[in-house]
Amino acid sequence: MISPDDIRAAHARVAPYIRRTPILDLEAGAFGIAHPLQLKFEFMQHAGSFKPRGAFNNLLSRPVPTAGVAAASGGNHGIAVAHAARALGHKARIFVPVISSPAKIVAIRARGADLDIGGERYADALAACERYVAQTGALSVHAFDAWETIAGQGTLGLEWEEQAGGALDTVLVATGGGGLISGIAAWFAGRMKVVSVEPEGSQCLKAALAAGGPVDVGVESVAADSLGARNCGPKVYEVASRYVAEAVTVPDSAIVEAQKRTWADLRVALEPGGATALAALISGAYRPAQGERVGVLMCGANVGLGTIEG
Amino acid sequence: MISPDDIRAAHARVAPYIRRTPILDLEAGAFGIAHPLQLKFEFMQHAGSFKPRGAFNNLLSRPVPTAGVAAASGGNHGIAVAHAARALGHKARIFVPVISSPAKIVAIRARGADLDIGGERYADALAACERYVAQTGALSVHAFDAWETIAGQGTLGLEWEEQAGGALDTVLVATGGGGLISGIAAWFAGRMKVVSVEPEGSQCLKAALAAGGPVDVGVESVAADSLGARNCGPKVYEVASRYVAEAVTVPDSAIVEAQKRTWADLRVALEPGGATALAALISGAYRPAQGERVGVLMCGANVGLGTIEG
Repeated sequence: MISPDDIRAAHARVAPYIRRTPILDLEAGAFGIAHPLQLKFEFMQHAGSFKPRGAFNNLLSRPVPTAGVAAASGGNHGIAVAHAARALGHKARIFVPVISSPAKIVAIRARGADLDIGGERYADALAACERYVAQTGALSVHAFDAWETIAGQGTLGLEWEEQAGGALDTVLVATGGGGLISGIAAWFAGRMKVVSVEPEGSQCLKAALAAGGPVDVGVESVAADSLGARNCGPKVYEVASRYVAEAVTVPDSAIVEAQKRTWADLRVALEPGGATALAALISGAYRPAQGERVGVLMCGANVGLGTIEG
Repeated sequence: MISPDDIRAAHARVAPYIRRTPILDLEAGAFGIAHPLQLKFEFMQHAGSFKPRGAFNNLLSRPVPTAGVAAASGGNHGIAVAHAARALGHKARIFVPVISSPAKIVAIRARGADLDIGGERYADALAACERYVAQTGALSVHAFDAWETIAGQGTLGLEWEEQAGGALDTVLVATGGGGLISGIAAWFAGRMKVVSVEPEGSQCLKAALAAGGPVDVGVESVAADSLGARNCGPKVYEVASRYVAEAVTVPDSAIVEAQKRTWADLRVALEPGGATALAALISGAYRPAQGERVGVLMCGANVGLGTIEG
């Protein structure tokens, strides 16, 4: 288990390398949602998602061999590891499944990493990455099942609390493998209602919480390239089972609608996974109580334009 | 002339109706610009630009007849007047030139205003609007040559100063007719270096400052639908000649490049006028001194997707 002090230490480590991303208070009625909201624009982070927080925390707190670093990813974690490795002067090799979006593949290559594309889902990329690490001795940077990753993502909770003060009761956070939500939940440690939002077709955390431990699930969602983990792993489960207040799921249609409304109102393009937390309010999967002050994390935006408008 | 107190009064009036838009501190090197920057995302304002500040200040401080309100606009002011009129229960008639972008025309219609499209440039729309006002007695809401408008736009300066504290030396602001920059300059009243940025092909403020008074200029720029005023008018000139430190111009190519870099890094779609202030740093039209702390206003985003990527 990690503590808020671990997250404070991670924040001190990564702060020189990350952006403090903006928040926006939205009036009731915006986005067609009756409730006032606070949005946090973490998609403006380096590399287009929150993932550099965990990537930098790994590379700054673990010894990196000359073989460099390796990571399996739906895409965003790979961009972030490539970004962090370049910033710190290490080699990187990234493994993504064939469903990784073209925008993400371009972004990994642009950061100078070696790229392997193969397999249908994240789990296939992970298996290929593990074989490579066994052969080469490269440092494996897991996207969620590693304390360094979870603590790094938790710096987002620390930062958001500094910005929002006591102005929030609840935060909605999209869950893929669960590194982000477990980091945020570990930061708040019960002082905030932390709600997990997953696609109906890819709900490894909700399934784990129901089963009393990590279980394999199917993965089929418009957000699969960022939220498509088959199993949340024991560390995420350990934190989430203790500190995540509620796990809800949303249909893909609500995710796409959240992308469209964000574009229409703010001229911001979110990827499906980045719009999934907002989708919980659009679909009604999460219904705030009267007066409940709700924050919505927009966590990723590595997407091509063609998928947004229309 | 207006005073900071006039702007404080405007802010008290409009605050319930506008969003406090976010800021983001960017590290040196972001966007390919060597200097660290602070961005303000005013394009996330209602109606996609800063214009509701001035529109609400007009409608809340002047008597509105039953004939309603009328405005001429390249587009954004029209969207804002339509937005404010609907929010406050008034009729609105908006006049735009044929160069107004499809995104803007859709946005005006979506807010329930009557729309007249005609003439090549903003000045033609203004003439049509003035004929309509003379016939009907509707309240004319000028896009920049009115103290209520200038004071309303000046609330952006007040808000930015509250957010930034003393962290900025200089702000770069795009100029069309000049309502925005004169409002911001009137707020700071010499306490901040306020720099105007215009397209090379549409520079009514720079020309006025050089001539010692408002003069007609040609209008030919990719940003003409938001920055395409032929003449800044006497009120803008009065404020700007006193409080605008410097007026620079940028080529259209730098504006388009600023749009592309904003999209690539932040997944935000700015319209050309909204990216023009940033273009001054890309083109080198404005070169900050060592250690100078520079803010860049991103003021509008009513644009279709097809114009951004590629």
